[in-house]
Amino acid sequence: MDTTELNFDIPRLGAARFDSPVGLRFIDDDQRVLYDSDRRTVQAALAAGRQPACFELAGPRRKIFFDPARLACGIVTCGGLCPGLNDVIRSVVFTLAYHYGVQTVWGFRFGFEGLVARCGHQPLPLMPDVVDAIHEDGGTILGSSRGPQDVSEMVDTLQRMGIGILFAVGGDGTQRGALAIAAEIRRRGLSIAVIGIPKTIDNDVSFVHQSFGFHTAVSQTRTPIVGAHWESKGVRNGVGLVKLMGRHSGFIAAYATLANSDVNFCLVPEVPFTLPGFLDALQRRIERRAHAVIVVAEGAGQELLQAGQQCDASGNLKLGDIGLFLKDQIQRHFEAVNVEVNIKYIDPSYTIRSMRTDSHDAAFCLMLGRHAVHAGMSGRTAMLVGDWRGEFTHVPLAAGVSQRKQIHPAGRLWDSVLATTGQPRQM
Amino acid sequence: MDTTELNFDIPRLGAARFDSPVGLRFIDDDQRVLYDSDRRTVQAALAAGRQPACFELAGPRRKIFFDPARLACGIVTCGGLCPGLNDVIRSVVFTLAYHYGVQTVWGFRFGFEGLVARCGHQPLPLMPDVVDAIHEDGGTILGSSRGPQDVSEMVDTLQRMGIGILFAVGGDGTQRGALAIAAEIRRRGLSIAVIGIPKTIDNDVSFVHQSFGFHTAVSQTRTPIVGAHWESKGVRNGVGLVKLMGRHSGFIAAYATLANSDVNFCLVPEVPFTLPGFLDALQRRIERRAHAVIVVAEGAGQELLQAGQQCDASGNLKLGDIGLFLKDQIQRHFEAVNVEVNIKYIDPSYTIRSMRTDSHDAAFCLMLGRHAVHAGMSGRTAMLVGDWRGEFTHVPLAAGVSQRKQIHPAGRLWDSVLATTGQPRQM
Amino acid sequence: MDTTELNFDIPRLGAARFDSPVGLRFIDDDQRVLYDSDRRTVQAALAAGRQPACFELAGPRRKIFFDPARLACGIVTCGGLCPGLNDVIRSVVFTLAYHYGVQTVWGFRFGFEGLVARCGHQPLPLMPDVVDAIHEDGGTILGSSRGPQDVSEMVDTLQRMGIGILFAVGGDGTQRGALAIAAEIRRRGLSIAVIGIPKTIDNDVSFVHQSFGFHTAVSQTRTPIVGAHWESKGVRNGVGLVKLMGRHSGFIAAYATLANSDVNFCLVPEVPFTLPGFLDALQRRIERRAHAVIVVAEGAGQELLQAGQQCDASGNLKLGDIGLFLKDQIQRHFEAVNVEVNIKYIDPSYTIRSMRTDSHDAAFCLMLGRHAVHAGMSGRTAMLVGDWRGEFTHVPLAAGVSQRKQIHPAGRLWDSVLATTGQPRQM
Amino acid sequence: MDTTELNFDIPRLGAARFDSPVGLRFIDDDQRVLYDSDRRTVQAALAAGRQPACFELAGPRRKIFFDPARLACGIVTCGGLCPGLNDVIRSVVFTLAYHYGVQTVWGFRFGFEGLVARCGHQPLPLMPDVVDAIHEDGGTILGSSRGPQDVSEMVDTLQRMGIGILFAVGGDGTQRGALAIAAEIRRRGLSIAVIGIPKTIDNDVSFVHQSFGFHTAVSQTRTPIVGAHWESKGVRNGVGLVKLMGRHSGFIAAYATLANSDVNFCLVPEVPFTLPGFLDALQRRIERRAHAVIVVAEGAGQELLQAGQQCDASGNLKLGDIGLFLKDQIQRHFEAVNVEVNIKYIDPSYTIRSMRTDSHDAAFCLMLGRHAVHAGMSGRTAMLVGDWRGEFTHVPLAAGVSQRKQIHPAGRLWDSVLATTGQPRQM
Repeated sequence: MDTTELNFDIPRLGAARFDSPVGLRFIDDDQRVLYDSDRRTVQAALAAGRQPACFELAGPRRKIFFDPARLACGIVTCGGLCPGLNDVIRSVVFTLAYHYGVQTVWGFRFGFEGLVARCGHQPLPLMPDVVDAIHEDGGTILGSSRGPQDVSEMVDTLQRMGIGILFAVGGDGTQRGALAIAAEIRRRGLSIAVIGIPKTIDNDVSFVHQSFGFHTAVSQTRTPIVGAHWESKGVRNGVGLVKLMGRHSGFIAAYATLANSDVNFCLVPEVPFTLPGFLDALQRRIERRAHAVIVVAEGAGQELLQAGQQCDASGNLKLGDIGLFLKDQIQRHFEAVNVEVNIKYIDPSYTIRSMRTDSHDAAFCLMLGRHAVHAGMSGRTAMLVGDWRGEFTHVPLAAGVSQRKQIHPAGRLWDSVLATTGQPRQM
Repeated sequence: MDTTELNFDIPRLGAARFDSPVGLRFIDDDQRVLYDSDRRTVQAALAAGRQPACFELAGPRRKIFFDPARLACGIVTCGGLCPGLNDVIRSVVFTLAYHYGVQTVWGFRFGFEGLVARCGHQPLPLMPDVVDAIHEDGGTILGSSRGPQDVSEMVDTLQRMGIGILFAVGGDGTQRGALAIAAEIRRRGLSIAVIGIPKTIDNDVSFVHQSFGFHTAVSQTRTPIVGAHWESKGVRNGVGLVKLMGRHSGFIAAYATLANSDVNFCLVPEVPFTLPGFLDALQRRIERRAHAVIVVAEGAGQELLQAGQQCDASGNLKLGDIGLFLKDQIQRHFEAVNVEVNIKYIDPSYTIRSMRTDSHDAAFCLMLGRHAVHAGMSGRTAMLVGDWRGEFTHVPLAAGVSQRKQIHPAGRLWDSVLATTGQPRQM
Repeated sequence: MDTTELNFDIPRLGAARFDSPVGLRFIDDDQRVLYDSDRRTVQAALAAGRQPACFELAGPRRKIFFDPARLACGIVTCGGLCPGLNDVIRSVVFTLAYHYGVQTVWGFRFGFEGLVARCGHQPLPLMPDVVDAIHEDGGTILGSSRGPQDVSEMVDTLQRMGIGILFAVGGDGTQRGALAIAAEIRRRGLSIAVIGIPKTIDNDVSFVHQSFGFHTAVSQTRTPIVGAHWESKGVRNGVGLVKLMGRHSGFIAAYATLANSDVNFCLVPEVPFTLPGFLDALQRRIERRAHAVIVVAEGAGQELLQAGQQCDASGNLKLGDIGLFLKDQIQRHFEAVNVEVNIKYIDPSYTIRSMRTDSHDAAFCLMLGRHAVHAGMSGRTAMLVGDWRGEFTHVPLAAGVSQRKQIHPAGRLWDSVLATTGQPRQM
Repeated sequence: MDTTELNFDIPRLGAARFDSPVGLRFIDDDQRVLYDSDRRTVQAALAAGRQPACFELAGPRRKIFFDPARLACGIVTCGGLCPGLNDVIRSVVFTLAYHYGVQTVWGFRFGFEGLVARCGHQPLPLMPDVVDAIHEDGGTILGSSRGPQDVSEMVDTLQRMGIGILFAVGGDGTQRGALAIAAEIRRRGLSIAVIGIPKTIDNDVSFVHQSFGFHTAVSQTRTPIVGAHWESKGVRNGVGLVKLMGRHSGFIAAYATLANSDVNFCLVPEVPFTLPGFLDALQRRIERRAHAVIVVAEGAGQELLQAGQQCDASGNLKLGDIGLFLKDQIQRHFEAVNVEVNIKYIDPSYTIRSMRTDSHDAAFCLMLGRHAVHAGMSGRTAMLVGDWRGEFTHVPLAAGVSQRKQIHPAGRLWDSVLATTGQPRQM
C-alpha cells in the first residue's frame, strides 16, 4: 500500500479551547502508531531520514474544540446492513451524552437522503433512553439507503440545523460523500466536523485493520458451511456451494475457510481462476472423496461472467451472480463427463448481515463509537476512526478512500487458506 | 380424515415365541390409543355400536418373534435431509444391540439404491461404537438418494443377506416403497418385517402427530425470519420474503409464524390466494407500516405459477419457485403503483434441514427408534411407528400413505395464524 | 390422579350477554377434551354410566360477559423467573387490545405485593406498544416476588381500580392465592374474573400437560450437560455433576437425560435412592469407563439430607443442597476406597430460567395468553388455562392445586430414562 | 514489561540441513516483529544505539533440522480445560502429517503424568483420521492433569521413545516444566526440541497478545451475564453476581464487561478495592436504579479474604472464593442498612472452559498449531509460539514465564471498563 499520506496530521477546525469534561487519561496530540511492525522497514525509513508511516493515536484530548453545552450532533447510516450499526449509534449517543454532556443528537433517516430536505424524512432525536437497548437488534434504527445525494443540499441541512459534528457510518461511497461534505464545509468556512466511521462487512477499507461487523459475519458463516458440509456428505458426489459477501476483497471467505475446516475450495476476487482449472480440481476431489464444499466470495471470478454489468444506486458495480453461474457450470461439466453430482447452493448473505453483533464486535463498536466522539470533540474533521494492530487511530478520509484493502495472493493469509483447503495455487 | 382403517390390527409375521430380554415393563397387545380426544365423537361411535378409531400402543412386548442371537437387521434412509436421521439410526442400533443383544445391523447406503445389488454400494456394518456420536452431526451417515428401485431386486438383497427386520426411514414415497417390499415379502412367504419410520420435515404424514425433525426445523426458522425482519426495517418500504419448506402442507410456515411474531403474511399450500388479493393487502400494510415480512411455504400458490411442471426422481411434483415468483410480482406491482419497495429474498432450506436435532427432537428420535425396534422384534410388519397425543403408536403402512396431513383452513391452527399476522382470511 | 373434579364445569360470573367482536370461529360451551387416551378407561366409564373425565375446550366464545369498551384488566407475575413470562404478558395485552378492543390493562408490579396498596408499587399501564418487543427479553417486565399477601387487601385493590379480569401468572402458591382471591370476590358478590396461568418451570401442575418455559428449560440444559461431559472426559476419573431444577418433580432432569445422551445417572425426587447404592453404581461406572455424568434434580434425595429444613417466603420448603451434598459424599467415598476422582459441579439454574423462550415456548405462550383472555372475557373464573394432548383447556383452580404432577417410577417416562442411562432401577 | 530478553534469538538444536517439503513461502530467519507500536519508543531505542525490542517472525523455514521421514513427535496437554485444546492437537498432527510427511505422532495422556513411565498411561498414536473431527468437541482427547512431574523421568521417556519434538500445551506451570525439560535435554546433549504452546484462558502470558480460548471464553460470558441481568431486573433490588475466570489477570472480566453492557461493576485482581468502598457504591446504584450486575474475576479482592490459603497440585495458590464472599458481604451490608436485596450468584466457569472454539479461536488455533510445527521442524527449542499484533512470533520460554501479563490500572483497557460501567475509579 502507498503509505505516503499517513504521516500527515488530521485536519482540524481550529484551536481546541475548552477543557474536556471527560474523566479519563488524555492522549497527547503527537502520539503516533507505527504502520509497519517489521523492524527493517521502520529502520530503513529512519536511516533514510524519513518518518516511518504512522497514524495519530485516537482517544480523549485534554482540550476540546466544541462547547458541549451548545453542541448539536448528527449521525447517519448508509448502504447495506452490517452487524454493529446500532451498537455504534448507541456508543456515539452515550459518549456524547454521558461523557461530554451533549444534549442534542439527531439521527438522520435513511442514509444521505435524511440530509436532503426535499426527501422529507424527519430526523430522530436520539436520547440515551431511546438507544439504550438497540444494540440487541440487528439492522439500524435509523434506516439506510444507497447512493449519493447533492452535497450542497446536505451541507445546507447541517447548517440550518446547527450541527457541529456529523458522524457518517458507511462504506467506500459514503466516505467519499463525507469527504465531499467536508470539502464543501471548508469552502463555506463553517465549523462543522465530519467524522467517518468505516462500515464494511467485507473489511476492505485501507489503513483499517478490522472493520466492525466483519468478525460477526465470519462467525455467522458457520451454520451455512456446516449445512453445506452435511448436504454434500448426505448424497453421493454431493457438492455444497456457499456464496459469501466480498465484492472486491475475499476476507470473509478466507477467514470462513480458516474457521470452518470443512471447506475444500475457497474462491476470492483477488485470485483469478480459470473455469477448466477449477472444474478439473473439483472433479479430482469428487473422484477421490465423493463430496466437496466450495466457498465463493460474491466478487470472485467476475471476469468469467462477461455480463453487461451495471452499477447500483451506490455506484457499486452490479456483480453477475457467480454462485448461480458456478452451480450451472459444475452441473454442465459433470453431465459432460457423465458423473452424477448433487449440488446444493446456499446464499446466506441477508441472514448474516442482519444479525446483531457477537461479543467481539459488541466491545469493538462500543470503543469505536467512543473514539469517533473524542475525535470530533477535539475539532478534527475529514477523518475516519480506525484501528491498527490493537490501537484506535485517526485516518485521513482521503487516505481511507484512496485504495481498497485486499488479500495479497502471495501473502500469508492466502498461504494459510491454501494450506487449509489443499486446493491448487493455480486453477 | 378417514379413520376407518385405524381399528385394524397391525400385520404380524407369526406367533411371538421368544421371551423378550428387555428389562422394561411390557405393553399388552390390546392396549389402544384413541384417535379422537373429543368426547362427543367417541361417545357417538360407542353409542352406534362402533369401535372408536384408535391405534395400537407401541412398546416392548413380553414375547418376541425373532431370536435376537440369530437376527440380522437392516436400516435405510431415503429422500432429502431432515434433522434426526442420525439420531434415529443410532437409537435403532443401540436398542437392537443393548436391549435385545442383536449382533448384526447393516446400514444400506444411499437410500433404496443400497438395496439393489447392481448399484454396487457396500452396506455399512453398524456397531454401537460406529454410531456412538453420530447424533451430533447433521445429515445421515448412510447417505441418501431419491426415487424408487425395483422391488424384486430389493427383496432379493434382503433374502440374500438374511435380513429379519428392515427399518425404512423416509417420506411418503419411501413408505410406499416399504409397503411394496412388504407385499413382495408376503408373496414370497418370507419372515422379514418391514418397519417404516416416517421422515417428513413438513410433518405431513397422516395419523402421525409430529414427525421427527419438524420441531428442529421450526426452531431454525428464527434466524432467517429475524434477518428478514431487520432487513425490512433497515430500509424504506422494506419487504423480507422467506421461503420455507412445505410442499403440500404448510405446518412449518404456520408454526414459524406463531413462534416468530414478526411475520405479517403467511402463505401455505392449503389456503389459496389470488395475486391481486395478496398484493393489495401487502400494499396496505406497506402504506401503513412501511415494512413487511412474508413467509411462504414452497408449495403455496402453485396454481398461480402455470409452469409446465415435472416430477423429480422421487416422483414428487417439481414445484415452480413461488419465492422468486412472488419477489418478481411484488416488484412489478409496486413499480406499477409507483411505490419504491426493497425486497430481500431469503431461502434457508438447506441450512435448516441439514442441522442436528434440537433437544426436543433428540429425545423424540431416541424414543422413536426404540419403539420401531420393539415393533419389529414383536414380528409386526407393514407398519409405521408414529406418535399420537403423547403416546407412541403403530400405524398400518397402508393408512399412513393413504392421505396427506394438511392444515385445515377452517381449523384452529390456521385461525391462530390469522390472529397473529392480522392478514385477511381471504386474499 | 384423582380425576373426579374434572367433569365439573368452570364457575362463571354470570350470563354472557355481549356479542364477541373476535373474528374467529367460536367454541361451543359443551365441547370437551377427554382426559384419558386409553380406550379401555373411557369405555369402562361409559359402560358404568359415568361420564369419562374431561376438560372444557378453551377458545373464543360467541357471547362474552364483559363489555370490552368498559373493561379494565390486571395482570400479575409471581414467584421465580421462568422463560415466557414476558411472552404471556404480551399475548394477554395484545389479545385484549387487538381482538377485543379493551383499552385498559394494568400490570401489577412485583407479584402479589403489587396488589397491596401499602407496598406502594405503582401499577404499570400496559399498552400494546409497551409490550411489543418484551418477548425478546428474559425475566418479567413487571418484576416478581415470592409469598402470599393479605387476600382482603388485594381484593380491595381490584375493587378500587375497577378491575374486571385478573390474570395471575404463577406456580402452586400463586394459584392457591388466586383461588383465595376468587373466593373473597364471590363472598363480596363482585363481578371480577380470576384466571390463573400456570407458571412452573418444573412442569408439575396437575391436569396440565406442559407448562410454559419447561421446553426452553430442557433445551437450555444442553450447554451444562455438554460441559459436564467434556470436563469429565478431560481428566482421569472425571465426574460431571449437574444440578437442575425440580423441587418435587424431576421432569426437567428426566427430559434433559433423554435429550442429552451423555448422562449416566439421573436422580429425581420421585425415585428414592440410598447413598451406598448410588455410590456403588457410580464406582462401577468409573472403574469401567473412567468418567461419568450425573444429573440431579434439586429436590432429589432430600430424605438423605436430614437438615432442619425451613420454608421460603412462598411457603416452599427450603431444600438442602443435594448437589453440594452429593459432591461431598462422592469425594469422601472415593477417598475411602482410594480411587482418585475429579468432580466438577455445575449449577446452571439462574442461566436457564432467565432465558427468553425457544420457538416452541414462544408459540405456546402466544396461544396460552390468548386462551386465558377468551376464558376471562366469557366470564369464567377460578380456573387455570391449560393444555392437554394438544388442545387448550379450562381447569378448575381447585383441581389444579389439589395435587402435584410427578414422574411415575413405574411408568414409561422413567423406563425411558433407565433405558438411556443404564443406571440400576434400584440404587 | 521488561523487554530486554526479547532481542535474543531463539535457541536452536543445530544447523538446519534438510530442505523443507512445505510448498509455502518461507520466512527469513532475521525477520523481526517490533514489540512496540509507539513511534517514539522505537525511535528512542534506535537513537540510543539500541535495538528496539522485537520477536522473531514465525513461519515455515526453507531449511529444517529434522528429517521428516525419521521423526517422531509428542504432544501433551496440561492443566485445566480451555476451548481449543483439540483444535491445536489436530492442527499440529495435520501439519506434521500433511505438510511435512511425519508419520509418527504420540499423544501423551493426562498431562505430564503421561511422560512418566511409572504412571502407566499408554500414549495414543495420533493419525490424521483420529483427530479429523476432534475440533468439534470441547475438552481434550488426551486428557489432562495438574502439577509437575520429575523432569528426569520425563526426559527418559522422550529419549526412550525417540521423540524429536515435544509440543507442550499448557499454562504458566506447564511452560516452566517445559523449560526444565529443555534444560535437562541440553544437559544430556540430546536433539529434542521443546515447543511450548501457551494455554491460558485468562490470557495472562507475557509477550503473547491473545492466547487461544480467551476469545471463546469472552463470547461464552454472554449467557450468564444476560441471565444475571434479567434475574436482577425481575425482582426489587435484584443483584446479579457473576464470577468469571481470572486468577491473577482480569482480562476475561474486563472484556466481558465491554462486550455486555449490562455490567455495572467489574472487579479484577489488578485493581484493589475496599469492601466499604464497593458496598457503598453498590448501595448508591441500588438506591438509584433498583438493580445491579456485578462481574468479579476469581482472583479479585483476595486481600480481603484473609484465608489460610493453600496451593493446588499445579502449585497455583488456592484462591478463597471471592464470589461467595461477596454474596455474603452484600447480604450482610444491606441487612444492616435495612434494605431488602435479592442476590443471584452465578458461577459459569465449567460451562465456559469446556466449550468448543468459536470461529475466531478455530482459525487462530489452526494457525497457531501450524506455526508451532514450523518452529519445531526448524530445530528451534525452549520457545513459545505466540502472536503479536496480528503476526505469529517466537518467544523465548524464559521470557514467557518471567512475568505475568496483567491489566494496567492506569491504562486504556481499564479506562474503557470504567467508562462503560460508570463505577468509581477508587472504591
